[in-house]
Amino acid sequence: HHLLTNGSSAVNGCRQKQESKQLIKNVGAIHFFCNYEESRGNYLVDVDGNRMLDVYTQISSIPIGYNHPALMKVMTNPNNVSAFVNRPALGILPPENFPDKLIESLLSIAPSGMTRVQTMACGSCSNENAFKTMFIWYRNKERGYANPSEQEVGTCMINQSPGCPDLSILSFMGAFHGRTLGCLATTHSKVIHKLDIPSFDWPIAPFPKLQYPLEEFVRENAQEEARCLEEVEDLIVKWRQKGKPVAGIVIEPIQAEGGDNHASPDFFIKLRNIARKHGCAFHVDEVQTGGGTTGKFWAHEHWGLDDPADVVSFSKKLLTGGYYHRDELQPDKPYRIFNTWMGDPSKNLFLSEVLNVIRRENLLEEVTRSGKALLQGLYALQTQYPHILSRARGQGTFCAIDACNDATRDSIMIKARNKGLFMGSCGEKTIRFRPTLVFKEYHVHQLLNILNDVLAEHK
Amino acid sequence: HHLLTNGSSAVNGCRQKQESKQLIKNVGAIHFFCNYEESRGNYLVDVDGNRMLDVYTQISSIPIGYNHPALMKVMTNPNNVSAFVNRPALGILPPENFPDKLIESLLSIAPSGMTRVQTMACGSCSNENAFKTMFIWYRNKERGYANPSEQEVGTCMINQSPGCPDLSILSFMGAFHGRTLGCLATTHSKVIHKLDIPSFDWPIAPFPKLQYPLEEFVRENAQEEARCLEEVEDLIVKWRQKGKPVAGIVIEPIQAEGGDNHASPDFFIKLRNIARKHGCAFHVDEVQTGGGTTGKFWAHEHWGLDDPADVVSFSKKLLTGGYYHRDELQPDKPYRIFNTWMGDPSKNLFLSEVLNVIRRENLLEEVTRSGKALLQGLYALQTQYPHILSRARGQGTFCAIDACNDATRDSIMIKARNKGLFMGSCGEKTIRFRPTLVFKEYHVHQLLNILNDVLAEHK
Repeated sequence: HHLLTNGSSAVNGCRQKQESKQLIKNVGAIHFFCNYEESRGNYLVDVDGNRMLDVYTQISSIPIGYNHPALMKVMTNPNNVSAFVNRPALGILPPENFPDKLIESLLSIAPSGMTRVQTMACGSCSNENAFKTMFIWYRNKERGYANPSEQEVGTCMINQSPGCPDLSILSFMGAFHGRTLGCLATTHSKVIHKLDIPSFDWPIAPFPKLQYPLEEFVRENAQEEARCLEEVEDLIVKWRQKGKPVAGIVIEPIQAEGGDNHASPDFFIKLRNIARKHGCAFHVDEVQTGGGTTGKFWAHEHWGLDDPADVVSFSKKLLTGGYYHRDELQPDKPYRIFNTWMGDPSKNLFLSEVLNVIRRENLLEEVTRSGKALLQGLYALQTQYPHILSRARGQGTFCAIDACNDATRDSIMIKARNKGLFMGSCGEKTIRFRPTLVFKEYHVHQLLNILNDVLAEHK
Repeated sequence: HHLLTNGSSAVNGCRQKQESKQLIKNVGAIHFFCNYEESRGNYLVDVDGNRMLDVYTQISSIPIGYNHPALMKVMTNPNNVSAFVNRPALGILPPENFPDKLIESLLSIAPSGMTRVQTMACGSCSNENAFKTMFIWYRNKERGYANPSEQEVGTCMINQSPGCPDLSILSFMGAFHGRTLGCLATTHSKVIHKLDIPSFDWPIAPFPKLQYPLEEFVRENAQEEARCLEEVEDLIVKWRQKGKPVAGIVIEPIQAEGGDNHASPDFFIKLRNIARKHGCAFHVDEVQTGGGTTGKFWAHEHWGLDDPADVVSFSKKLLTGGYYHRDELQPDKPYRIFNTWMGDPSKNLFLSEVLNVIRRENLLEEVTRSGKALLQGLYALQTQYPHILSRARGQGTFCAIDACNDATRDSIMIKARNKGLFMGSCGEKTIRFRPTLVFKEYHVHQLLNILNDVLAEHK
């Protein structure tokens, strides 16, 4: 269906290595080989020397552009060598300076209400361990913080209840929270993610299907959100009755892989209140939305929650995975949340520098400015090409627009790439924009010019 | 129960940072803070300047010692900077040299029969994705390689069968395969790993409980292994009848976290044949045993399998996670196995250098030599202190010995640490030895001398 997934058809250069097909498993997914040495800032260079304005940025995981001088310096600072060469088992033998490095990096940007942070190697591990943290918290509440019974201790070793309880996580249709088996049970965006993999019987609520621009459909959208929230409460009750109580609710501030689906702050505030009312933890998955791309460091800061989330997970632009949580979700014993590496201190070194650059260069303001220009430009394009484009939407530079169908979307993307603009897709027929935080207004104009050229040529 | 898990009681230095308790989640698990800059080779230095012979090596994840010059050079080579600073989405936009780097590193050490490799960020993600690969392979066989039905496509999005089929992975009591939800369903070594986390109803076979030294109990051990294999076949039949067929069998060559439990090559060969007979994939988890520590690069090379494994997963000493598999386990479509990073090319740079050092310095022979000396020394100690020690066992330097109970084991470990020897534990009362590959005979003697001193003082 999707040109970009067909490998060779999308490879636009003669030096692209066909022989690699023998070696690399996911060759069908490979768009092209890159020359990262020559890539700079917002521009990605392929092995044939083609230079592209990159607004996909390694699936939204490059915070301040390619080969940023501040990050190069981390590498050449002799004080940092040890952090790269000696990867510790962070949970048991942390480096002397690790607490300071955490204060400088992750703790300096902790979302409101979050006092603890646990690093992990990637987004999936972050969500898996966040789910475990919520299960542990929920069962401790149920047990009245008593020691587990002998029956629990015995049954847990053989995967049976009550030691391995029938608890569930409520997720939303269209959500993406990762693809390991726990995460995958809460992911519902594409068949290719899910097919043939065993799963859990966990409740799935509808995510609001809003009309855009949001300002023009306030009443209709509020109705749709109310419908979804009612369904959430029904599911919580139903799954409790089934004997599989909902320990936590997980949600993205903007459903990304699922097609850039937005909801209002009012929806999220009410959802948080429902979680509180029913004793479920509230987990905000900021793996794709976090790191400044919406104009605030965390997308959920746009909601103005009085009662903060219980867990906030991150990865991608943060360069390390991990999750924050409230004090009361701290597991009661060590080793309940644990693995060999528990993250990677060398990634925290890079993150500290990224945060310095964000602060020094006021990049969140830059994102807000560029984001406005980008969204205005997308509105103009959909007005000019209403038969091709619709539903422009976004927050900061986290923007998207729909094509009339997937073939058109894919064709626009290929043509844009041949003109030097590399974009990503999501959902069924959506183009998503995920530029770096150093994406400035003149990059926006370059992007819009190329898109306009492609659309003008499109029959 | 376990002194080392009680945090402060195990911290043997005044500069150990108490304030960090506010910041780091797993503080109770922290043994001590380290000065990695000052650590060298087999010697780990703590923040108070105490220098210890380290035979735990960050939970068996340091291949050639701390601050190895060959690894320092990777950092200072300007050609490598880009791989650290620009982490790609490897599945879609690999660096130009990535196929070559894979040939130099992971493919140069591929186990017999393994033609494909997929990198991942850590051991858990490696096993999760290896399981998914086996499920996909199994369902494709069942479907006759036809396209999925509409019903499968529809049901998979809501976590229901047949799209999310009731398939299972058979694992062994005492096994450890990681702690994300899929892996955790196959992990059965400690209560603390499992309690309160929902799981799958998957079959769990007994792992042989052998008597050591293996050479002296050949008949008894063969009987015990036959009993376990019979149970494996019974479980496969039973779970098929339950409607939850076994898609794969996962096993460690030596159960590590579970207490260093060995089995004979004959056991593994017969297990492989059972998997073949029943159409289950055979997955060897070499996360802890791989990388040379048993005297061969892969522990399962000791078995002499005629019919190779289907999947071999790795991490730790390999510095990157991942798994090898046979051609026929290649998923039929791209993106079925996928995530944002799919590993980290900077780790492959380090791995290439590690492999160069292993070859140049014949480290596998070194391991075999040191391992023999270590095991002989442990035999001598258990003969000398039969009321304290028993069941010395090992392959290469992957050795272990049991104390009479957990309190004695923990006390020996603390006393040894105060004398400059840092060891790890596993199982209920086992001390495990997991030195680097540059652990030479004089290190063995140093280790044995300290242990002997501790035991002599022990009342």
